[in-house]
Amino acid sequence: MGPHAFERPVQIRFSHCDPAGIVFFPQYLVMLQNLIEDWFTEGLGQPYAELLGPRRLGLPTVSLACEFAAPSRLGDQVMLGLTLDRITACSIELSLGCRCGEQQRMRARQTLVTAALDGQRAVPIPDDVREALERFLQQQPVSR
Amino acid sequence: MGPHAFERPVQIRFSHCDPAGIVFFPQYLVMLQNLIEDWFTEGLGQPYAELLGPRRLGLPTVSLACEFAAPSRLGDQVMLGLTLDRITACSIELSLGCRCGEQQRMRARQTLVTAALDGQRAVPIPDDVREALERFLQQQPVSR
Amino acid sequence: MGPHAFERPVQIRFSHCDPAGIVFFPQYLVMLQNLIEDWFTEGLGQPYAELLGPRRLGLPTVSLACEFAAPSRLGDQVMLGLTLDRITACSIELSLGCRCGEQQRMRARQTLVTAALDGQRAVPIPDDVREALERFLQQQPVSR
Amino acid sequence: MGPHAFERPVQIRFSHCDPAGIVFFPQYLVMLQNLIEDWFTEGLGQPYAELLGPRRLGLPTVSLACEFAAPSRLGDQVMLGLTLDRITACSIELSLGCRCGEQQRMRARQTLVTAALDGQRAVPIPDDVREALERFLQQQPVSR
Repeated sequence: MGPHAFERPVQIRFSHCDPAGIVFFPQYLVMLQNLIEDWFTEGLGQPYAELLGPRRLGLPTVSLACEFAAPSRLGDQVMLGLTLDRITACSIELSLGCRCGEQQRMRARQTLVTAALDGQRAVPIPDDVREALERFLQQQPVSR
Repeated sequence: MGPHAFERPVQIRFSHCDPAGIVFFPQYLVMLQNLIEDWFTEGLGQPYAELLGPRRLGLPTVSLACEFAAPSRLGDQVMLGLTLDRITACSIELSLGCRCGEQQRMRARQTLVTAALDGQRAVPIPDDVREALERFLQQQPVSR
Repeated sequence: MGPHAFERPVQIRFSHCDPAGIVFFPQYLVMLQNLIEDWFTEGLGQPYAELLGPRRLGLPTVSLACEFAAPSRLGDQVMLGLTLDRITACSIELSLGCRCGEQQRMRARQTLVTAALDGQRAVPIPDDVREALERFLQQQPVSR
Repeated sequence: MGPHAFERPVQIRFSHCDPAGIVFFPQYLVMLQNLIEDWFTEGLGQPYAELLGPRRLGLPTVSLACEFAAPSRLGDQVMLGLTLDRITACSIELSLGCRCGEQQRMRARQTLVTAALDGQRAVPIPDDVREALERFLQQQPVSR
């Protein structure tokens, strides 16, 4: 796997790990949620807290597929990555992953939809967010 | 969707919910992990805590695919369910779901492997666990 | 310690435990939050989800003191308990605990305030909630 | 409050927040656990993952007292801080806090003990860890 279009390092914490001493898999999904937040704020220039707060735009996950290839342990310095695969009227499709050095630890495909925070019904992606997404899609490396 | 072969009710808690007031999706995976524990203990007659503890047998998840169809909210009484799809030499494939009354909230397919707790390498499913799994597979309703 | 005025059994889960194989202490506070929810709904007859939802009344914790006396492990059947110590204009003071059989695992004192969910400013306890609290206070066993 | 002896910035995440849109208080304790890990590794020069891993030394919390003064919200950039108060034969007493700019959000006192990871019985603080703690205690600012 080549590098993702947006990457951030994370340290594996005591609180991520289970009685087997490895990351409990739902914790990867929390770490990737944090990555998605950073990507909106830093990668798209659309502060995530403003979308959820003043703009009342939710980004619930509607589908997710993951494979866990190798365990991560307390103290590991891993790299989380994200690539934008596709934009539809109301959804954003992402490829995500976690590696440690060259070793792939897990990878995921995740689809988010834009939704009214209060009603939870899907709404079209707002124009400024769509423009930021399309710019990101064009500028990210073509293939991985 | 018909009922699952093993079901348990769960109440949606404050701690499951996010700032949008709905279940944060990784929390579903924690709830389903609890269901899998109950299934081992009560459905298979193989106490989960003994597998993980004295027998040092881990059950890490190696793949997962979920769809989230409708949100769950604080106070909802939902039903979690599990059906055993397939047993291989070292793995167990499950269909899982969460519904509230007749409304499907999410569903998942999840593959667990049996692994040595310390080394995290896959090991064959122990004979007594395999027998319990095969018995469950034969006795559960044929189709859903 | 005698029994608490409101008690509920809980099973210690894989997801509660840390790499040392024991309950990670913030998980006790999540379990006790669930107990407080059940106490509102079943002990006071004030459904917690209605307070937080339609009535927009928050119950944030403003102080907490805990002692952890003995570890809990995966598979333990513990008893969580709660006693109402004091009611003020805007706050509720509780004693809480977790025991396994006769062994005290942890105990806590926790103060919640009633707050407007949106503004997070303290508000007086609503009359019907106050009446339910005072009734509970009078009916619970005098000493522990 | 003056600055703490060891500080690290943290961003408040979606996953930290509850349906009231503010940090769910057990999440502060997870954030402070991460701070304690960083303090061992970076502040004391004793990598936390080595203590828990190869050296099998646990650091369970035996007492905790917190006050929550003001809520934190999604997107807040907060500063977590830690000061070493006291070292005994088997325990470490800390003052901890979270502020946002000049506003105190919460503070805590927490006592950890050194324990054999497998048996969970308290053991004396190892000599090299004690030396690092004493050096830190002497070098940190005298008063706060």
